[in-house]
Formats: sequence, structure tokens, C-alpha cells
Amino acid sequence: MASSKLLRVVLQTSVRRSYCSPPGQPSAVFRPRRALLFVAGNDEKKIRKVPTLDVDCVVLDCEDAVALSKKDEARTTVRRMLEEVDFGRTECAVRINSVDSGLADDDLSAILQAKKLPSAILLPKVESVEEMQTFAASLNDAVAGIESNPTFDLFALLESAKGLMNLQPILQETVSLSDMSPFRLAALCFGSEDFAADIGASRTSDATELIYARQMVVLAAKAFGLQAFDYVSVDYKDTESLRRQAEEGARFGFTGKSVIHPFQVPIVQQAFSPSPERVVWARGLIQAFQQHQQEGKAVFVYEGRMVDTPILLMAQSIVQFAAALEK
Amino acid sequence: MASSKLLRVVLQTSVRRSYCSPPGQPSAVFRPRRALLFVAGNDEKKIRKVPTLDVDCVVLDCEDAVALSKKDEARTTVRRMLEEVDFGRTECAVRINSVDSGLADDDLSAILQAKKLPSAILLPKVESVEEMQTFAASLNDAVAGIESNPTFDLFALLESAKGLMNLQPILQETVSLSDMSPFRLAALCFGSEDFAADIGASRTSDATELIYARQMVVLAAKAFGLQAFDYVSVDYKDTESLRRQAEEGARFGFTGKSVIHPFQVPIVQQAFSPSPERVVWARGLIQAFQQHQQEGKAVFVYEGRMVDTPILLMAQSIVQFAAALEK
Amino acid sequence: MASSKLLRVVLQTSVRRSYCSPPGQPSAVFRPRRALLFVAGNDEKKIRKVPTLDVDCVVLDCEDAVALSKKDEARTTVRRMLEEVDFGRTECAVRINSVDSGLADDDLSAILQAKKLPSAILLPKVESVEEMQTFAASLNDAVAGIESNPTFDLFALLESAKGLMNLQPILQETVSLSDMSPFRLAALCFGSEDFAADIGASRTSDATELIYARQMVVLAAKAFGLQAFDYVSVDYKDTESLRRQAEEGARFGFTGKSVIHPFQVPIVQQAFSPSPERVVWARGLIQAFQQHQQEGKAVFVYEGRMVDTPILLMAQSIVQFAAALEK
Repeated sequence: MASSKLLRVVLQTSVRRSYCSPPGQPSAVFRPRRALLFVAGNDEKKIRKVPTLDVDCVVLDCEDAVALSKKDEARTTVRRMLEEVDFGRTECAVRINSVDSGLADDDLSAILQAKKLPSAILLPKVESVEEMQTFAASLNDAVAGIESNPTFDLFALLESAKGLMNLQPILQETVSLSDMSPFRLAALCFGSEDFAADIGASRTSDATELIYARQMVVLAAKAFGLQAFDYVSVDYKDTESLRRQAEEGARFGFTGKSVIHPFQVPIVQQAFSPSPERVVWARGLIQAFQQHQQEGKAVFVYEGRMVDTPILLMAQSIVQFAAALEK
Repeated sequence: MASSKLLRVVLQTSVRRSYCSPPGQPSAVFRPRRALLFVAGNDEKKIRKVPTLDVDCVVLDCEDAVALSKKDEARTTVRRMLEEVDFGRTECAVRINSVDSGLADDDLSAILQAKKLPSAILLPKVESVEEMQTFAASLNDAVAGIESNPTFDLFALLESAKGLMNLQPILQETVSLSDMSPFRLAALCFGSEDFAADIGASRTSDATELIYARQMVVLAAKAFGLQAFDYVSVDYKDTESLRRQAEEGARFGFTGKSVIHPFQVPIVQQAFSPSPERVVWARGLIQAFQQHQQEGKAVFVYEGRMVDTPILLMAQSIVQFAAALEK
Repeated sequence: MASSKLLRVVLQTSVRRSYCSPPGQPSAVFRPRRALLFVAGNDEKKIRKVPTLDVDCVVLDCEDAVALSKKDEARTTVRRMLEEVDFGRTECAVRINSVDSGLADDDLSAILQAKKLPSAILLPKVESVEEMQTFAASLNDAVAGIESNPTFDLFALLESAKGLMNLQPILQETVSLSDMSPFRLAALCFGSEDFAADIGASRTSDATELIYARQMVVLAAKAFGLQAFDYVSVDYKDTESLRRQAEEGARFGFTGKSVIHPFQVPIVQQAFSPSPERVVWARGLIQAFQQHQQEGKAVFVYEGRMVDTPILLMAQSIVQFAAALEK
């Protein structure tokens, strides 16, 4: 009994840790977001192709992919696409403009009039606690007239030195704001190009210049129970680099990666999926753990490696993630 | 005179920096803890072998190495082993269960009844300021009846995203709690497997995925005058990787490394010892510095390298550590 | 119109980000400080050679390069050199002794009596908020009698675990102190040898042991709008390593590097300069951006790479830095 109780504790802990439900929302369902495909919000043709791409999440972009003269067109198109297109298994997120741009209010009020709402909002250029307060107020205003009482998953995009310097207070405030606002913080995204430009770094293929920032984002995300999305690989024709970069991101603990071209989707989604062999290994390890636990042993050797609780937790994550992908 | 005064200042500074005495305890003796061997607290046979292993420190484990159904057995065994076994030059630490587990109080009250006490307590899964407050209260209760007024070295094990996010306030509070509690914070340990599972990282042999966390732990430890213990290399049969990983840990500034198998002890202890050539180099440099200082030169070239105060400090640490090992 | 407005915003943002003017001093001119050559303050012969070295910045050192018995001599020499030597295009900074040393007041009062003042002060061993307060008070005292009302650029040298642990509060306090003091915080320097000695790390040629600290310093510098100076490569005869280390520093976002030998100046200054090809690439990209922006496209492909705002920002920095070097 005692041992099965420990296993239950372990399994519950595993769910709490690996899945992205923030405190107070234990029932939120885990969503695979291995690839987030950014598409310009005013590019109707590309948006209509999304359902054929088998991508976990599309981000309809009203920000950097849209020129200032096209912002209104993008808002209208995004709203119409949300209503008209059946995205199938693909989750729909919208990237609005940053709070500082002065355009976020118009983005929200236009897009949230759609009869079908996006499930997530991506807020770019997050740099300060005050911005998050302004965003929460704007979102509260924008949903005031909506009968369905929607709640959006929030993806916070970090892409500046200031944003990373303020990361801990930003996260604390954002979690606290979500209690009285129609969003729950679900993920941190790291924006490498803007960040590199901001700190004056040169981007390289192995991204050594970003290792501190990327691992800080993973650490902060996981400390707050969030998903973490790695940077866009901009040389979209270099699939070999993309594969390597995506696999490294997965090893670092990122749960997905932003992409800008349909070519990138299958490569990235594969890199962030556990291999079949890994799933078999994880299932076997869990079984062996249960068996040894019943015999009163906590530590044992499985396929040549010492196993205790932390390795069990990793195995649990792999099995649960694989199950979520099969749905 | 002036120059010998500077040298004296330099030497004192060196002692203060390199040794692990926290503020207010300048007389605490430096303890080599190059390898910390974890042994299950209920494995009497393995514990009785420890004195033959020539290991700097053994950690009698009541936590992850002990199944829930065996916790009582482990407490009793640990207490008896402390009393019965002559560990010789090997320091004895005990890993209790985490504050969150609800088992720490029972661990402390059972083990601290031993007639021979451990010199150090290792507290796992440290994540918050509140936990440290609870631990301090528990320890104060547990020692209430002990006549010898013992003080324990505390090793704090960091193995989660949350623990690292809160590291600075945790350390400030722990140092402050130690003023009125029977412990002094002596070291930080980094737990790689639990940490990797917590952030969803995959462990690799070169540990790139941990570089941010490991270097953060070293930085925080040294800022608070503490020792720092690097991760367990779990593939205990791969001695070549172990040697490489241990040597990297030493280069990063860790002062020791956790191990789980007797095979690992000599390799790790060697990696965390200065080589004889290095000690000769350091002694020569110190002599040359003294000579140049008397001649009024602060900067000079020693074996092809510019030497000033920081390099002298490093040389001092090497010589003092070597001396401590010879005791 | 709208698109040219965005471009204007982008250009202004770029200036604000890339240049080192702290808030409230938007008119401060950008100063290339690719190499900072440290010369002992009492070595008149070496100081008189500086104008022939074509170095961006010389640091006349009263600290580690000067033995305690020579401090007075160094102060007098530095003051006389400032008055007598025409340093031409080379900026003059002075490294005083640390606040903790008790020597900083005498350094400031002696040196600031010079008829020609240094443009920058380098404060070493910065570790705490209190130190910065003491420094600000000392500097206010030292300039009390100076008619010209000088303001000095302040370079803060970080070279200990404690300094990095306290970096954020130190920077906040220093920026706030600069409002009522005759300095503006202009740069952070990273001191690798002292730092490595402080944390017990061994220095290696590829500096893996410093990656966390160095990238933290860049991040903090850029978050506060400051320049960042990378570590001294002490093996001054190994020019190939120096070139590699300097190029890595530039890629990481450092804007310059400390050097201790004239040999190092041209290598370092080249590493921190954009190549002619890079400047041509950047100019072409900016032109292409302007053209596409007028056509209402925000994202386009330039020389095989997706271009949006962040890459434009990088191109802007390169062109502006190249222009500053040609002055």
C-alpha cells in the first residue's frame, strides 16, 4: 500500500510538473505545441493552406509580418479567417502588436469580435510589469461584451535584454493578474533575432551566443509551470541545421519551436516528439519501477542505468506526451 | 613594510574567499569534500564498507535511495551505523527527506538521538524560503534535548526550476536563520537528474543542457562563501566520461561531486585535487610575487604569463587546498 | 507616409538601443571603445607611448598594476601625464582603487586636480549598492572645487561572485545616483581572472567556465543601455587565441575588450569592427527594407534570408558603428 501510495504521489507530481497547467487550473488539458507556424495575418492565401499542413499551432500574425499600412487589413482578415476556415486539429493563436506600439487595443477589439475566437494570444516584446498590467486591462475591456466568457492561453514573447532582466517580476505579476483577467499564462516564447539585435550579438548556427538567454527562459517557464517555445531558425532552406537546432531545443527542455515556413513543420514536430524506442524504454522503466517499488526497493538498475525517482519522472513525461500526441 | 602589508591583506582575502566559512564563523576549518558518496540508509552492508573506501564524505541517505516502506528501517539503521561504525577520516552526512514530503521531522528526531551525530545534514528538493524556515524550526526542536549543543553543516540540494529561481532569497534567509539555529549553511549541491526531469531536458554526456544551472549554482555558492557540489554521473560504469565530467566540474569552480558508486570515488577525488605540478607552480608563483612585491612591482611575468593579484589568489587557493588534503 | 513613419520609429529605436546613452542623456555621443589598454599609472615611459598606438581608449591604472608602495607615485604621474601628454584620438580613463581598499578617495582627490581631466573613471571590484553610494559621495567631494563642472563616464568592473549576484540592484542604484552625481554609468567591464579566482574556476582558452558570467554581464549592460567590455586575454603572446577570443566576445554582444599589451590593440580593434562586406550587406539590407516598406511588405527575403524588423535593427547598428569609426 505504502509503495503504491508513493507511486501515486510520483505520478501526480509528474503530471503537475510536465504539463503546463498553472496553479489553480489543474484540470487544464495539455496541448502539444511542438511547432508554432507564424503566418502574416493579411495573407489569406497562406492562412487557407494551414489546415493541410498538419501543424500543432498556427499563429496569425498582426505584428512584425505586417507592415504598418496593412494593420487594419490584417485585423479584418484574421477575424474573417477565424470564422471561415476550419483549422481541424490545428490550434489558432493570434499575435497582436506590443503594448508599447499603441496598436494592441485595436488588435484586440477588432479580432475578438470574431464569432470563433482564437484559443491563445501571443503578446510580443514583453519587457515590464506595467506592460502586463496594461495588457490585462485591455483584454478585460475587449471581452466585456462577449457572452461566452472566453479565457485565452497567453504566450509571452521575450526578445530583449530588458525583458529577460525583468523576467521574474513579470511572471509573478502576470500569474497574479490572470486571477482577475480572461487569460492564463501558458507559455514563454524566446525571440532570438530581436534579442540578438537588442544585445548586439551576432547569430551563429550553433547559437552559443544565446545559451544563457535560452536556458534562462526554459528555467523560468518550468518554475512557473509553463511551456517554452524556442527561437525561429530563419534560414528556412537549411533543413539540416533546423533539425539540429530543433533537437537541441528539445534537449534543453523547450516544448516547441516557432517556425516561419511550412517546410519546417514536420522537422520541428518530429524533433519535439519522443521516438518510439524512447516511449518503449519509458514504459518499460515505469513497469520495472512499479515492480521494484512493491518489493521495497527504490533504486535499481534498468538497462544499465541506476533508476530512482527523477528518472521515473522523465519516463512519465515521455509516456504522457506520447499519449497526448496520439489523441 | 607597505608591500608586506598588502601581501598580508591578499593572503587573508584569499583565505576568506577560498574557504567555506560563512560570515561570523571565521574559525571554521576547511573540509575537503571532493567526493560525496551516497549510500542507502538501510543498506547496512554497504555502510559498513565505507571506511575502506578512502572517501572524503559519505551521505547516509534516507530519501530517494529508500522506498517509502523502508523509511523507518533506514532511520534506525542510520542511527545505529553512526554509533557503531568507525568511519575514520570519512565525514558523515545524512540526507533526510524533503520538507514537503512530511517525513523530515521523523528523520531528524530519529537520527539525532544517536550517541554519535553526523557532522552534516543534506536537505533535498530545496525550493522556497518557507521550507528553510520550517527546516530550521524542525532542527531546533530535534536538538532541544541534546546536551552537547551540536551544530551541523547544512548542504542544500537544488534540483528544480523553482529552487533555482528562488536561489538568492533562499540563501539570504538560510544564512539569516543560521544565526539562531544549530546549523551553518556550508554547501550547495546540484541535482542534475531531478532538475533535468523537472525542466524536461534530456541529459547528455557533455551536459550542455545544464550549463546555465550549474554555473548559477557555483556563482551563488561562492557569493555566499559556500562549497559547491556537482551532479552525480549516473552511468557509473563509464569511467572515462566520469573523469571528463569531474574535471569539468572542477574547472567550473565546483569543489566536489556527488557519487553513487565506490568505483567513482578515486576518479572524482583526483579530479578535484590539484596536481603536484600545479602545486609546485602555485608555490613558485607566490614566492615570485612576494619578491616582486618587495621590489615595488605589482605586475610581472611568471612562466610566460602576466601575474597580478587575481592569479596570486588562485595560487593561494591551490596551495591551501593541497595542505588541507595532506592533513 | 505610414511606412516612412514606421521606418523612422525603427531608426530611432535602433539608435536608442545600440548606443550607450543612458535614459535622460539622449544627446551623449557614441564612443568607440573597442580596445581598452591598461597601463600602470606610474609607468611614465609606457604612458608617453600611448599616442603612437592608435588605441580607442587607454586606462591609466592606479589599482592592480601598481604596488601599494607606489600608489602616491602613480597618482602624481597620472595627473602629470593627463596634463602633459597629447593623447590624440585616444580617450583617457583612469582606474582608481576599489572603494573597499580605502584608497579611492586619495586617488580621486589627487587625480582630479589635473588641469586636463580624464573622460572616464573605471571603478574596480564593484560588489554592492553601498559601495556605489560611497563612490558617488567621494566623487561629489572630489569635484566640489572644480569650476568646469565635469561629468565622467563610469565603467564598473565586475570581477566577483558577489558583484554578479548583486548586479541588478547595483545597476538600479548607480543609474539613480547618477542623477545627482558627476558621472553617468557608461559601461560594464568583466574581469575574468579575479572572477575565476573568486569562484575557484580554472581559466581555459575557450572560456567555457565563464559563459554564464559573461553573457549575464552583456545582458545586464544592454538592459541598462550600457557598453560591455570583455575580459583581458592574459597570454598576450598568443595572438591566434586572442583573435578567436575577441571575435567570440564581439559575437556575444560585447562592444570592446580590455587589453594589457600594445600587441593586442590592432587585433582586438579589428575583431570589434564590422567588416567592409558586412557594412555593404547592412547598407543593402536597409535600402531593400525601405523599398519593401513603401510597397507595404514588412517581411521579404534578402540574400536568401527572411528579413523583418530585428534584422533591420542589426543592420542599422552595423552601419552606425562603421560611421562612428570613420570620424
